[in-house]
Amino acid sequence: MLQSPEEKKRAITRLRRIRGQAEALERAIEAGTGCAGLLQQIVAMRGATNGLMAQVMESYLRDTYGRDRQHSPDESARDIDETMNILRTYFK
Amino acid sequence: MLQSPEEKKRAITRLRRIRGQAEALERAIEAGTGCAGLLQQIVAMRGATNGLMAQVMESYLRDTYGRDRQHSPDESARDIDETMNILRTYFK
Amino acid sequence: MLQSPEEKKRAITRLRRIRGQAEALERAIEAGTGCAGLLQQIVAMRGATNGLMAQVMESYLRDTYGRDRQHSPDESARDIDETMNILRTYFK
Amino acid sequence: MLQSPEEKKRAITRLRRIRGQAEALERAIEAGTGCAGLLQQIVAMRGATNGLMAQVMESYLRDTYGRDRQHSPDESARDIDETMNILRTYFK
Repeated sequence: MLQSPEEKKRAITRLRRIRGQAEALERAIEAGTGCAGLLQQIVAMRGATNGLMAQVMESYLRDTYGRDRQHSPDESARDIDETMNILRTYFK
Repeated sequence: MLQSPEEKKRAITRLRRIRGQAEALERAIEAGTGCAGLLQQIVAMRGATNGLMAQVMESYLRDTYGRDRQHSPDESARDIDETMNILRTYFK
Repeated sequence: MLQSPEEKKRAITRLRRIRGQAEALERAIEAGTGCAGLLQQIVAMRGATNGLMAQVMESYLRDTYGRDRQHSPDESARDIDETMNILRTYFK
Repeated sequence: MLQSPEEKKRAITRLRRIRGQAEALERAIEAGTGCAGLLQQIVAMRGATNGLMAQVMESYLRDTYGRDRQHSPDESARDIDETMNILRTYFK
């Protein structure tokens, strides 16, 4: 999990930005905004999602592989399988 | 812009799903959910954003290049520059 | 198709770079290079592939939708379906 | 590094396929193949590169975080920074 209050706050701020972008997109659609403008807003929302992904991935790696936790071989293997399941969605 | 009421409704349904996913992620962070679970939810939200992108891109192409609009060479060149500016964010 | 000799030359230069990167990667694997180094080389090769994609996509859009070709509605619809089939691989 | 002969062989097979795809693309360009066909071949080459990335990433994770290596906190922190530098290219 996200360890510090600062990390949680950063992630929640990103999520609220994404929600704001989604709400703005809804208004833009209702107002008949051109598709080019809608696409640029969606690209920005996708960028915000990728930023959130990078932040949580770093916390995940520190949680899973960091500090001085002694990893048994089995535990490590399971961790790595879990990590690859997530990363494979990016290697398509 | 998104032409038909059905297209608008479909896009807004996708946006509401993204907002729901962002709200659920915020609750999960507050509840101390593990990072692996958070990452899977973010991957799902990214997938929903990509789905919205594909839908609006198709409308954009039909608006811009479809039907029987006669394209002057200059008009076409401007359209294509605009299209590439959007697509380049995906070819990084 | 790629219209001008310059465009063809540019695309072929990119392809030869990709081939060179693949050959260098093979040598690095044989030499026992660490995975972090291999990953950075693969990221560079992926970037070169994306660069080639952007170049050919622009030519494709100009070929398909540019200049003063008069598009019949059916012709346009087929073009757009074809374009979306290619783009959807990026919106996953 | 890629540990087993089998892993090396698998990665090299993937690289040779990518080289073959690049060579085929060069021939297709010289032969004046249409851009839609070229784009489909580039998408396939990109898929092969992503497949190679996934394979080497998994070996990298096992090398770096796997088995029974005792991680000192500093060593772990450096490993994770290195891992994130690679992954960030995917979270753009």
